[in-house]
Order: sequence, then C-alpha cells, then structure tokens
Amino acid sequence: MGHDCSFLSALELDGEVSFEAAARESHAADWVAAEAGLGVTPDAVVWPASTADVSAVLSAADERGVPVTPYAAGTSIEGNAVPLFEGVSMDMTRMDEVLEVRPADLQMDVEPGVMGDVVEETAADHGLFFPPMPSSSNLSTIGGMIVNDAAGQRTVRYGEVADWVLGLEVVLADGTVVETGSRAVKTSSGYNLTDVVVGSEGTLGVVTRATLELAGRPEQIRGGRAVFASMDDAAEAVADVVRSGVDVAKLELVDPLAAEMADDHLDTGLPDGATIFVEFHANHGVDEEIAFFETVLDAHDAETFEIAGDDRMEEIWRARDELAFAVQGYDPDLEPRHPGDVTVPISRYPDIVRHAKDLADEHDLLLPCFGHAGDGNVHYAALIDPDDPDAEARAEAVYDGIVERAIEWGGTATGEHGIGMGKRRFLELEHGADGVEAMRALKLALDPNDTLNPGKIFPETADGGRVDRPER
Amino acid sequence: MGHDCSFLSALELDGEVSFEAAARESHAADWVAAEAGLGVTPDAVVWPASTADVSAVLSAADERGVPVTPYAAGTSIEGNAVPLFEGVSMDMTRMDEVLEVRPADLQMDVEPGVMGDVVEETAADHGLFFPPMPSSSNLSTIGGMIVNDAAGQRTVRYGEVADWVLGLEVVLADGTVVETGSRAVKTSSGYNLTDVVVGSEGTLGVVTRATLELAGRPEQIRGGRAVFASMDDAAEAVADVVRSGVDVAKLELVDPLAAEMADDHLDTGLPDGATIFVEFHANHGVDEEIAFFETVLDAHDAETFEIAGDDRMEEIWRARDELAFAVQGYDPDLEPRHPGDVTVPISRYPDIVRHAKDLADEHDLLLPCFGHAGDGNVHYAALIDPDDPDAEARAEAVYDGIVERAIEWGGTATGEHGIGMGKRRFLELEHGADGVEAMRALKLALDPNDTLNPGKIFPETADGGRVDRPER
Repeated sequence: MGHDCSFLSALELDGEVSFEAAARESHAADWVAAEAGLGVTPDAVVWPASTADVSAVLSAADERGVPVTPYAAGTSIEGNAVPLFEGVSMDMTRMDEVLEVRPADLQMDVEPGVMGDVVEETAADHGLFFPPMPSSSNLSTIGGMIVNDAAGQRTVRYGEVADWVLGLEVVLADGTVVETGSRAVKTSSGYNLTDVVVGSEGTLGVVTRATLELAGRPEQIRGGRAVFASMDDAAEAVADVVRSGVDVAKLELVDPLAAEMADDHLDTGLPDGATIFVEFHANHGVDEEIAFFETVLDAHDAETFEIAGDDRMEEIWRARDELAFAVQGYDPDLEPRHPGDVTVPISRYPDIVRHAKDLADEHDLLLPCFGHAGDGNVHYAALIDPDDPDAEARAEAVYDGIVERAIEWGGTATGEHGIGMGKRRFLELEHGADGVEAMRALKLALDPNDTLNPGKIFPETADGGRVDRPER
Repeated sequence: MGHDCSFLSALELDGEVSFEAAARESHAADWVAAEAGLGVTPDAVVWPASTADVSAVLSAADERGVPVTPYAAGTSIEGNAVPLFEGVSMDMTRMDEVLEVRPADLQMDVEPGVMGDVVEETAADHGLFFPPMPSSSNLSTIGGMIVNDAAGQRTVRYGEVADWVLGLEVVLADGTVVETGSRAVKTSSGYNLTDVVVGSEGTLGVVTRATLELAGRPEQIRGGRAVFASMDDAAEAVADVVRSGVDVAKLELVDPLAAEMADDHLDTGLPDGATIFVEFHANHGVDEEIAFFETVLDAHDAETFEIAGDDRMEEIWRARDELAFAVQGYDPDLEPRHPGDVTVPISRYPDIVRHAKDLADEHDLLLPCFGHAGDGNVHYAALIDPDDPDAEARAEAVYDGIVERAIEWGGTATGEHGIGMGKRRFLELEHGADGVEAMRALKLALDPNDTLNPGKIFPETADGGRVDRPER
C-alpha cells in the first residue's frame, strides 16, 4: 500500500469503507486510463453517504498527507479520476438523491452522484430540462459533469454546465464546508467561487450538493441531418450557420469515416458523406428558421437534407447519438486510442477538421472525427492495430498535432473533458507559465497540502513527484 | 499624503502621472460615495497607456506596500473605485482602443477604458451586439462592467457580462501579466481564471484587455409596456412570464412611484400604475410570442398593453430608460440616498418588491423601485430631506432590511453592482464565515501584500485597518 489508510476505520461514517482488492481495483481507472493500462489502484475506497462523511474523511486525510481522489461514474477520458498517488478513492455515487425541485424557480438541488438521465427525467416531470446535458447522460453523474465543466449538443444555443450551476456545497481539503453562489440567477457578490470549483476536476474541493438552473421545454422541436459532398463543404457550412446567426439548438458534424462506422453499426443505410446533424428549438416560427438554415445549406451544396418532428427525429439522429459505440465496435482487430476533443474559434473550424484528417492520413491511421461543431468543437479517436509496433506512437503524434494546432489558432486543448492526466503537457502551452503559476496559487490557497486529486491538471515535474506539493 | 508615491516619477511610463490636487480630488469617489461624502483622495493618479505601464506601476507599488485602486468612469455605486487607503488611483480611461473585431468569429478585443456605447457602435457596424450591455452604456467602461460582472436589461435572455467574456489579459499585483481563457467559446482547460477576475472589483488584478463574444442582431425586435392596477399584479405577472417560458429579451418592472417620477420628468402622460416594460427578439414568430405573453398579462389583469416596432419602441421605453435621471431630478428638496439592488429567486419576486415598499412606508420614505425583474432583480433608492435629522438613518434601515430579506430568501446582496464598500457588512451573512474565508484565501493567493483596491469586498475589521493585510 502506498499510504496507511487505517484511520478510515476509526471514523464514524454513515457511508462505507473498503480495503478489499476488488473494490480498490474497480476504482483504479476511468474509461481511457483502463484501456491504456494507466490505472493506479487506491489504498482504500470510501463511499460517503453525507456531507459530514466527506468532511470527516477529507479532514483526517489532509492531516495525514493522504491523497483523496473523487470518483463517480468513472467515465471520464483524461484520467481525471485515477488516484495517481494512491491513497483514498472517494466514490460519490451513493450520494445520489434529487434533494428538491422548485419548478416555480426553474431550479433543482441535487447530490453529486445523481446520474444525468435522472436529472433529465426529474426535470421532464415538470416540463423542464437541463440544457447543457452531455450526450453521455446515462453514463455520467452530475457531479462529474460539474467538475469537468462538461457540455453537450445543446451548448451551441444554451451554454455549458457552468452557465446552469447557480451554487454549490463544496467540502474543501481541510474538511471545511462552503456554500457558494445563491439561488439568484444573477449575482456580483464577492468572488465567483462557484466557477472556481466548476471545472476544477476535484482538485480544489469535493462537491456535495449543486443547485441547477433549468429551462422550459420549447414548444417546437425539429431534428434533421444534411449530407455534403466533402468534409470541407460541411465544415464551411457549420461556420457559416454560426456566423449567419441561424438559431440552432444543436449543430453536430460527423466526418465520412465516422458516418460509415455509424452506418455499419446501425445498418441504417445512411449515406457515408460528411454529415451535419441539427436540431431546432422554438416556441414559434420553427419552420421559418429551418428555411433560413436551408439557405445556408444551399450555399454549400448540401446533397441531401431531411428534417422531422418527434415522430422520426430520434431515427434521424441515431447515427450521431450512438456514434461512440459505433467507433468502439467498428473493427474487432482495431482499438480506439487517444480519444480527445479540442475547440477553436468558429472561423478556424474547417481548418482544424482538415488538419486532423491530414494528420491522420500522414500517419496512416483511421481517425473518425465528430463533435459539437457549432461550438467549434471536434472530437476524435485513433483506431490502431495493437500488433502494429509503432501505431501507438503515431496515434499520439496525431493527438498532439491536433491539440497544438488548436492552441496555436486561439483555441483550447480541451473543450469539455478537462485536463486530467492526459493533457497536462499542454497546460503551459495554452495558458503560459504565468497563467499556470496563477492557477497553482489558487490550488495552494484552497488545498495547501495537495490532498485533493494530486497530479492532475498541472504539468508533471521532472522527478515525477506530486506536482503541487509545496515545500514544507 | 498617506503614502510616498514619488517612485512613480522614476518609472518610464508611456502614460502620465499627476500629484496635482485637482487630479487627485477627481479620483476620490464614485457616484454614490461623492454624494455621501465618502470619498478618499489618493496620493497620486496614474493614467497608464499600455499593459507595460500597468505592470511597472503595480510591481513598484507592491514592493513598497502602496495601495493601487483601479478607476475608470467612476460611475459605480458601492464605492468600488474609492481609494480607501489612499495610495495610487490607476485611471484606465486612456487605454480605450478597440483592438480588433473578428466578425467571422463574433468576437471583439478591447482595452478596458472603452466606453460601453463604443462597444455597441463598433459591434453594430458588423450587424452584431454585446448582449449583456448595462443600461449605463454611455456612462461606464467595459473594464468597469467586467470587474463588477455587470448585467443589463437583456440579461434575462442572454446572461450577464461574465457569460460574454472569453478571455482577459490581467496584470496581477506583482506586475505579472497573465492571459486567461482563449478565443474558443467553450473550454475546460485548467481553472477558470477569467471568471475569478470578472466581478473581483479590481482586488485580484487589473484588466488590460478583454476578448468579448458578440451576437447577431435578431431580425425582429419589438418593445412594449403594460400597466397594472397594483404592484402585486405586476410583480406576479413577471414571475409568471418567467415560469411560463415566454421568450422575453427584456422584462423590467417600474413601480407606481417611479412611474410617476418618470412621467413628471418626461411629461409623456404615462399612466402612473405599476408598469412592466418588455422587449422581444426573434428571427421569426415574434407576433406569436407576443400573443403568448399577452395570455399571461390577461391572467394578471393588465389594464393596458401597447407594443411597437422600431418606429415607436424608443418612445414607449423612454420612461424606463431615463428613470435614473427622473429619480435624480424629481424634487430639488430631496436627495437620493443608498441606491442599490438585490436579486432573489423569481418565485420570491413579488414578495421582495412588497417587502421593499412596506419597509419604505414603515419608515416614511419615498422609495422608487424598478429593475431587471425577469432576473428577480430590484433596484431602489430612498429620497430623503437632508434637513430631516434622522432620514439618513431611516434610509439605511430600509436598505439593510431589503438586503437582509433578499439573502434570507436565497437571493444575493448585490445583483450587478458588486460589494465595494457599501455592502461589505453583508458578505458573511450571504456566504458564511467559511465562504468569506475561502474568498480571502483567493485574494491572498493572487495579491499577498493586499496592494490592489484594499478594503473592498471583505468585511471591515474592528481596528478599521486594511482588512486583507496578512500578518508579516
């Protein structure tokens, strides 16, 4: 064991503690870390049942210099939940209650372990929805979405998770419980602690409750897809839709390779061209907005365009919604590696997609690309033959080449999955040494002993040690 | 002089320095501090002309323990720009260039001293606008809006200033220049330094450049107003509009007293009832949305409703847009005191407005109320007779009573004007001792010598000293 965690047994918790190998091993990795063999087994797993539990564990661990890494669904892709320096994996999935719905305020209070689809269903019971919900709503918790500042298909119209979190209850590293924000939708009272914690990947505090803002379900919803002769045409059309101010609620791009994979998987006979998936939300006038959208499609030579209401929308969108599984199952001899996403200013969107495809060709790799195109976001994953000795290195070169170019063009290394372990090496390239130093100052201000999720976000040090650990 | 600022003369600045009494006195106060006699004359005024100037001054002041308080238009209302512990007033108004407009990305880079209306005009040249622009666009700078996380009439539909700032160049207290955020509209890369600085009232860094996101001007804009028999009816209608999901771009409430003042000022014959002002933005279907809005009005017995397009919209809205001046000029024998705003969850909106009016009656004061009702926001100011010996104390009691109740109901002490000096005593009530302590940790992490705008935001200490100053 890396750390003596026997102190956990002496705490009187409402929840549970386990030192069993099975429990520990099941908390070693997230999706990508598991595939890449980058998991690290924690010394113990705690399932807190209350804020008091979280506070007791953090306070005791902090005193002893034992790292604590929050864990939830384990579906992150940058190693965000891997307990890199062992210690305690704090599994939040048993704090999974919807605490209160206030429909008259369009608000909901939830515990962090509530799954995304439970948030959706609960909101839907009141005619409401949580606009920034990621596509992985049935695979990830609201707590995970908050600490990664996740986003989804509807972000192009409604914004990201941070925009819909009004306040948090957060336990700091020393066990102090802080309430951030308020139930007001607008405040300029003191520092914005909410947005400091949102996106901090469990390195600044553990979220134990969140107040979410909700929206009313629009009266008119239509979904459609358009297929283009070339990827360039499709990407240019995306940039033009955004520039023109067409009011789209979703705007996704799927490249011909990914479209082919989706078609193989679903067997729907979808044409294998570059495809834009789109959704419209309105109380009134949705048909006129669709007509406006079509004028942009025409200018970019869309080959086909189909649009539908509730009856057939799901069918039209299935190829996009199940794409991740399609990529996963495409070829049993190939393994997806180095999945990731970047986001660029919209005028650079055609360029970054082209760059990604060119890099893949250059390195002789299959690289399906798709993403929240309306935000300038592209997701990708390389499919490699594990018997090919340098395929892994080529996949990494493609991954790095995409990220570096995105940053060069004013974009970001990660649109919605955080930095985790996977993108630490780009933090300084994106934010500069002084930007990273300012972030480190925040980290040490709230977690001076580097107890919370050490080794994440910040660049690895030369000695491989805990990167944020201050001199003592 | 409080601090020896002669070091400024030795710095080779592109900008200017003045030790003249006139310059110093004109930087002693903001609007409300000036009226209340709460100004503090700085020892020197600097007008930096570049980021390098800002860095040089901050670095030199920090080494010497000399406070620096950023200043711009001086139109804040909570004493935010008052140099409470003297030292240097750093006037940002000469850094007033629009640096670049990127219409294809819907973005604009500006220096902090650019006035709001210049941002509006520049964006309009490209068919774009800056959605969260405050009503005071011709009186305040974009830098002031950013550091107060300002909001405006369109916030109900589009969000606040923080939502439309993609990145900042910020000079920290020791002179370090940090670039936060990126040009991507969505990122989860590292800590959100942008939203730490936004709303920090110049206590964490000095903003020297901002990248703003813009939106396309909608094709259909309509403005209107509805008058109600009672304030209760009007406030209930506001809450119901929000709850019903009517897509309003502005939703303002003006109480009968404020309506009377506006009418006196403008002589427009506006009925003196409780009035809702509304605006609609759409590409299509605006008439249907207005019809939807009218069904809500009908349920709350609106007495009149008028709506117009570009031709008469300005006329209909004038009573709201010039209200601040109407209040100011209402009665030469009365002086407005303790203006402020609070924001509550929308279901509490009718209650907070009623509470404010009841408190005013109880304390025998004229208290016009108005605000961004759709956000749950209400602004107020007491009109007092300066010869009435205890009117000031009564005005303060009303002010405190409104803020305390807003916090009790889950709202916030300040929707959009910051904490400044005026609301320091409520910070702990709203955020708790531990919340304030977490904020103080951030302050000391980025400004360990308490150089930047000391004495703001945090509660005053018993000895009246510089509240954030750490032990040395």
